[in-house]
Amino acid sequence: MGTLRIATVGLDLMAEALRAQDADVTAVDWRPPGGGDPEVVRALTATYGDPRVGEANARALARLQEARPMIVGAGPAGELIPGLEGRMVLHAGPPVEWERMCAPQRNAVTGACILEGWASGPQEAADLVARGGVRLAPAHSLEAAGAMCGVISPSMACWAARDEIGGGVGYSPFNDGPGDAFWLGVGSPEAIRRQRLMADEVAPGFAAALRAEGPIDALALCAQGIAMGDDCHMRHQATTMLLLRQVLPAMAEHAPAAVLPTARLLGGNGHFALTVTIAAARAALAGIRGIPASSLVVFISRNGTDAAVQIAGLPDRWFTFPAPLVGDPLYRPGFSDDDAAPDIGDSALVECAGLGGAASAASPGVAAFLGGGLQDAIERTRRMGDICIGRSERLRIPTLDGEGTPLGVDARACVDLGETPLINTGILHREDGGQIGAGIAVTPVEPIRDALRALAAHLEDGPR
Amino acid sequence: MGTLRIATVGLDLMAEALRAQDADVTAVDWRPPGGGDPEVVRALTATYGDPRVGEANARALARLQEARPMIVGAGPAGELIPGLEGRMVLHAGPPVEWERMCAPQRNAVTGACILEGWASGPQEAADLVARGGVRLAPAHSLEAAGAMCGVISPSMACWAARDEIGGGVGYSPFNDGPGDAFWLGVGSPEAIRRQRLMADEVAPGFAAALRAEGPIDALALCAQGIAMGDDCHMRHQATTMLLLRQVLPAMAEHAPAAVLPTARLLGGNGHFALTVTIAAARAALAGIRGIPASSLVVFISRNGTDAAVQIAGLPDRWFTFPAPLVGDPLYRPGFSDDDAAPDIGDSALVECAGLGGAASAASPGVAAFLGGGLQDAIERTRRMGDICIGRSERLRIPTLDGEGTPLGVDARACVDLGETPLINTGILHREDGGQIGAGIAVTPVEPIRDALRALAAHLEDGPR
Repeated sequence: MGTLRIATVGLDLMAEALRAQDADVTAVDWRPPGGGDPEVVRALTATYGDPRVGEANARALARLQEARPMIVGAGPAGELIPGLEGRMVLHAGPPVEWERMCAPQRNAVTGACILEGWASGPQEAADLVARGGVRLAPAHSLEAAGAMCGVISPSMACWAARDEIGGGVGYSPFNDGPGDAFWLGVGSPEAIRRQRLMADEVAPGFAAALRAEGPIDALALCAQGIAMGDDCHMRHQATTMLLLRQVLPAMAEHAPAAVLPTARLLGGNGHFALTVTIAAARAALAGIRGIPASSLVVFISRNGTDAAVQIAGLPDRWFTFPAPLVGDPLYRPGFSDDDAAPDIGDSALVECAGLGGAASAASPGVAAFLGGGLQDAIERTRRMGDICIGRSERLRIPTLDGEGTPLGVDARACVDLGETPLINTGILHREDGGQIGAGIAVTPVEPIRDALRALAAHLEDGPR
Repeated sequence: MGTLRIATVGLDLMAEALRAQDADVTAVDWRPPGGGDPEVVRALTATYGDPRVGEANARALARLQEARPMIVGAGPAGELIPGLEGRMVLHAGPPVEWERMCAPQRNAVTGACILEGWASGPQEAADLVARGGVRLAPAHSLEAAGAMCGVISPSMACWAARDEIGGGVGYSPFNDGPGDAFWLGVGSPEAIRRQRLMADEVAPGFAAALRAEGPIDALALCAQGIAMGDDCHMRHQATTMLLLRQVLPAMAEHAPAAVLPTARLLGGNGHFALTVTIAAARAALAGIRGIPASSLVVFISRNGTDAAVQIAGLPDRWFTFPAPLVGDPLYRPGFSDDDAAPDIGDSALVECAGLGGAASAASPGVAAFLGGGLQDAIERTRRMGDICIGRSERLRIPTLDGEGTPLGVDARACVDLGETPLINTGILHREDGGQIGAGIAVTPVEPIRDALRALAAHLEDGPR
């Protein structure tokens, strides 16, 4: 028996009218590329039509697949990060003046000033920064990246990662856990005390273990963590324990005094490995930065004021847009959008490295936390797959029978489809800091569109 | 439009003939209850018809749901297990004479004799046991249970679990890991050295942590482990790390010398928490043993020679049948069924406590290891669901959006459907011991059928 099958493209109205007549309709979701903007269509045509872009992206993907970012150091940021000297504080996101900096990030900066002994209280610290007595700079400007507020000052404990394959490096501060913590926009005495503890008692244990046993293959930990329900952005429970299990023998042998504070710290902080992941993912991604003509997104970076992206073919150029509120928010009781700071943190770079939103399907726990189920999580991974040019050979999703996580975010696909990386992230209080919720931040398409137009212009100008 | 829908019951022939005519057929898989054996049908009719059975089972299920088996001790088996005195060795499975004991279990028994100093070598040990110089007894006879060979002698490190709710206790030896190990049927000098290390250096650390911090809620660890990809039988990677994370602060504070050997041991043994789980699950299950008229399966127990079950309504009666080979086997290169010892170990009791095969869907990793995917794992959990009367309120499966694991194996359903607990388990070499593979053991239905018939007879005899 022959049945009429109807496909409609783009216009839901047509499909619904046909469905009302009981017809078997397959609606194809089609939107005009780039929202129909002629300049954007031109940029899409130029970049899709230029073989240099496809070739560059393939080379960039191969390099991401081959990357083996290793944790090579743990210790004071001022000793590990070249250029972090004097009265200088790094922060997450693109460059931002003190006046425009969101309150949580300012709280963390003032906390860092007190930690460093440059001020004795928050107001004194704020005045000092306001009059230029402390240099502020994006973490990325010194090859670093931090979660949420992402503040780094010289005496804070920090990870150093290096990828020998692509030559990239990455630094990220030790994660200071729940509650009173710099990364969450709290600069309180308790938050400062925790920084001192990490720098004085915990980091030396990791440093000793690294000296004794050599670098740690951070993405190998992530791969195992993903096999155990982590997305390696919003959930790092397994990866944190894997890190502990790996370093513990050497730490117990070579720095036994560090075991107790480390055990206590990690026992109370399932996010501890987050910044290990960030440092490593940054090192891997830095390896594709500067591949000429590549349209792959390298970094997504937000500071609670602006959201910004970099693409591989235009290294060190930030394309910015106002940071959005985090979507699909789940707030702690008593909080709402009115209390929420906009999206913040350098951590979204992990979404460009096959982790976080890309690995959603691996983490039904995160999906449940966000109020959904496994199918929602799988859908998020599929959406990331739509804008990625490959699948990770290393990071494999058990619930998808070992399928690799989407890898290689292509600015062209983002602009073409109007789909952008989904970022599993936390939400801070807009004034006081502190985590008040979590959700899924959708990277604004505008800065990616701007980056793509700039790439198209650059290709036109450059030699063919 | 009306469409003829056809359902067929039982006979695939009919369904296939109809399908050949393009009819829309729903085939219902029906087999005559109890294989059609009149005596078995009588037992099914009697036990399903007797309200005492359903009521007893509901009570038993409620007690399993409420059970909070806690790890209360770690130390030498001879100090923890009442009745383990003199020259005595416990073993997995139902009672078995030395002559009928499978070779791997004999290897472990002789290893234990050397460990205890009762013999200086394997032959001397074997002779000593053969002439009655060492008392052999099933672990269950002293409220203990062991994985695989499950051998326990007085100086071996051991866990003690107690469930205050149901009053049950459970003991299980520390898991001695991969390679040369008693549990795997190897009694070599290396296996003996590892036992000494665990007893002398590791167990005191856990004992100190338990003294300082109090008992450990073992099923809480399992619940988290299941949320992180463990089935808590064949895979204990996450649960082992959770155990380490939980005890480490107290161990580092109160028994720092134990940290290094513990870190090394657990770092090399992802199965370490298996026997924590077994001790705890045994304590929970022991709480339903002796509930009159209950047809729930309490223990499944194998010794490589016989497989046996106990049901709640007939405590301490073993119903036995020859142990089968492990099904769906995956062998290490060079090994086959010809090399395999039959199914062995007390660990299958965890399948009666909502773990292992019941939790298959939680562990795509185990499914992949067995050569299948998530859907195969879900199917295994569904099959366990067919023979269980409830779902665990505590052990929840992320890939099934938080559905509880099947709990309360009903002998009636097993016999009715011809389906029995699926046991995720390892395979030992039949002579030398050592793990040569893994697979899914299907509990033989015969001992469950015999137990059900005995229960029916018992109900008929008893007061109504």
